[in-house]
Amino acid sequence: MTRLAAPMESRSFITVPVPLGDRAYDILVGRGLIETAGLRIAALGARAAAIVTDAHVGPLYAEALANSLEAQGLRTSLVTLPPGEATKSYASLEQVCDAVLAARIERGDLVVALGGGVIGDLAGFAAAVVRRGVRFVQVPTTLLSQVDSSVGGKTGINSRHGKNLVGAFHQPSLVLADTALLDTLPIREMRAGYAEVAKYGLIDDARFFAWCEANWQGVFVGGPERDEAVAQSCRAKADVVVRDEHENGDRALLNLGHTFGHALERITRYDSTRLVHGEGVAIGLALAFRFSASLGLCPAADAQRVEAHLSAAGLPTRLSHVPGGCGTVDELLDAMAQDKKVKGGALTFILARGIGQSFIAPGIEADKVRIFLDSELNPSRS
Amino acid sequence: MTRLAAPMESRSFITVPVPLGDRAYDILVGRGLIETAGLRIAALGARAAAIVTDAHVGPLYAEALANSLEAQGLRTSLVTLPPGEATKSYASLEQVCDAVLAARIERGDLVVALGGGVIGDLAGFAAAVVRRGVRFVQVPTTLLSQVDSSVGGKTGINSRHGKNLVGAFHQPSLVLADTALLDTLPIREMRAGYAEVAKYGLIDDARFFAWCEANWQGVFVGGPERDEAVAQSCRAKADVVVRDEHENGDRALLNLGHTFGHALERITRYDSTRLVHGEGVAIGLALAFRFSASLGLCPAADAQRVEAHLSAAGLPTRLSHVPGGCGTVDELLDAMAQDKKVKGGALTFILARGIGQSFIAPGIEADKVRIFLDSELNPSRS
Repeated sequence: MTRLAAPMESRSFITVPVPLGDRAYDILVGRGLIETAGLRIAALGARAAAIVTDAHVGPLYAEALANSLEAQGLRTSLVTLPPGEATKSYASLEQVCDAVLAARIERGDLVVALGGGVIGDLAGFAAAVVRRGVRFVQVPTTLLSQVDSSVGGKTGINSRHGKNLVGAFHQPSLVLADTALLDTLPIREMRAGYAEVAKYGLIDDARFFAWCEANWQGVFVGGPERDEAVAQSCRAKADVVVRDEHENGDRALLNLGHTFGHALERITRYDSTRLVHGEGVAIGLALAFRFSASLGLCPAADAQRVEAHLSAAGLPTRLSHVPGGCGTVDELLDAMAQDKKVKGGALTFILARGIGQSFIAPGIEADKVRIFLDSELNPSRS
Repeated sequence: MTRLAAPMESRSFITVPVPLGDRAYDILVGRGLIETAGLRIAALGARAAAIVTDAHVGPLYAEALANSLEAQGLRTSLVTLPPGEATKSYASLEQVCDAVLAARIERGDLVVALGGGVIGDLAGFAAAVVRRGVRFVQVPTTLLSQVDSSVGGKTGINSRHGKNLVGAFHQPSLVLADTALLDTLPIREMRAGYAEVAKYGLIDDARFFAWCEANWQGVFVGGPERDEAVAQSCRAKADVVVRDEHENGDRALLNLGHTFGHALERITRYDSTRLVHGEGVAIGLALAFRFSASLGLCPAADAQRVEAHLSAAGLPTRLSHVPGGCGTVDELLDAMAQDKKVKGGALTFILARGIGQSFIAPGIEADKVRIFLDSELNPSRS
């Protein structure tokens, strides 16, 4: 349906509400949203908008977005940063804050993040702290940011002590997830984002995971299945965020696959030529299910089904899939212990009793993790 | 009473509660609080504390504070910054955040700000953003910070576009205002802080202003009047903050005297040898009342009473009191228009119908301000 060139009025967008009280907002999902962004953003009542983007995305979409905003009478400005994770730095934060202030953005005005997770996290953090908080709109341009980082209000930058260690909870006022922008996304980035889509099924929605198994190809090629997958992912994330906005409890479920995944990213030194976040998550999801199975918590058949689906979508699922290797058991354990979710020195994992039945497991003993990782690294021995 | 050397148990502290729901906290006011800080801070349940201070205050009190904390089993660390307004910078924010992370401060742990407003604002902002928010305790060491910046949760740094333009609302978990620390405060800093004390009476408490007129000398020399003045100031500020935590309304009343005051600070380029914040506020308070009188809003006798009291306390009250001059009418207007409280281009002032009867006056025409400032700068002409 949405692939047909229909008149603008009849285009169908999916609206996902995020009911966070006085911080409630809508996520709109659909093809062509960027073309009508001005109308929707102007409806928020701002008089000016500072667009923050990167040198990959800016040349493609910033002018169209700015024109759409200016047609609605908004004063716009543009700040363009280098693409890549290194941009989530203190120096970029200063650059964006000063650019937003130079653009005379006042409390009623807006910052608009046009880009992937790096731009969304950085621009959102800048919006959180300029004048102690101005509003912002997310226009995520990757599958990963459409289904994950643009929803939920986590913003931040990296410190030399770790990723995302400095930031703020700051909810956007609107999220525009234009799924047509994904048509030009490199396949590797598409797959990486898809790992987070599958994750939502694995957390607590076995039906959605089964839907993914049947429909994932439509998500990749841009059919109506893509809009549905993005919308369902946003619904799932919004549900968790509404229950636990500041990550004191349930929100940790969203970290399914991430304790292992972050450790692998750390060990590969965030070198995206070796491993990107979503690939680490894919391996982490497969490991979390096999670890659960090895502890007798989860049927082995479920762990095999997780691996089979991620593999079908072209994602890595084994430690041996990490290009250049993933270090020793001790190095992996060390990297996990540095994770910010460590509380009181004990390791917290998200484990599962089956597909769609994940739970928070605090206080997992390092020895159990060690035995499991050893069996993963040396399958012949076990 | 409190000047007598009484056994620790019988020392009387004043507790000022700040009832902000799940962000509620107490302000304790009294002599000798720093000696028992460990007990009170340990009661918050943290296992580690990162003390942030400056090179003036640190050598005087940091060791005593750290010892007091360590005696209660808290792991402590110390980061010391250069004294002065220049420390409220992006670079210092990075330095403090990284030091707090290096000290392995987790979400249940604490940042302790030991210093004046600069340290409190900077350390509070770092606490707001490290791990997207850890708790912090204010141990303010100047009169100004005890009665103003340590209460209310405004934190931040300066941008090249202006003061406090980057920051967060982040409430402390406890404020320990040890009034004995003020015994060694230079008289100029004491006076500057006192301008904010008098301000609370002028905003909405004519009785407290009359109390100030009768008791200000006790505040300066360290009698029980000092504790009472600090506590009453904290109560007054807490009342306003509870009504309007995020400055969408009433909290602007706290800016009485500040639109003029900030302009003078800007014109003197924040050169503390010429003008410190509290001196700018004192002149600003006198100007706000004379401006109100000139608009026919306030009895001239009230404006005269304000000036007489501030002068008695050794504070400046006239534009001509600014060492090196305060520029022309146009320069003053320009400096005021840069204030972050400008909304929609119009000037917002806090004016008064009398002592203790201030109100927010949005949309004051520049021409009226121009005429008033001209009469202040050229009294012979009017």
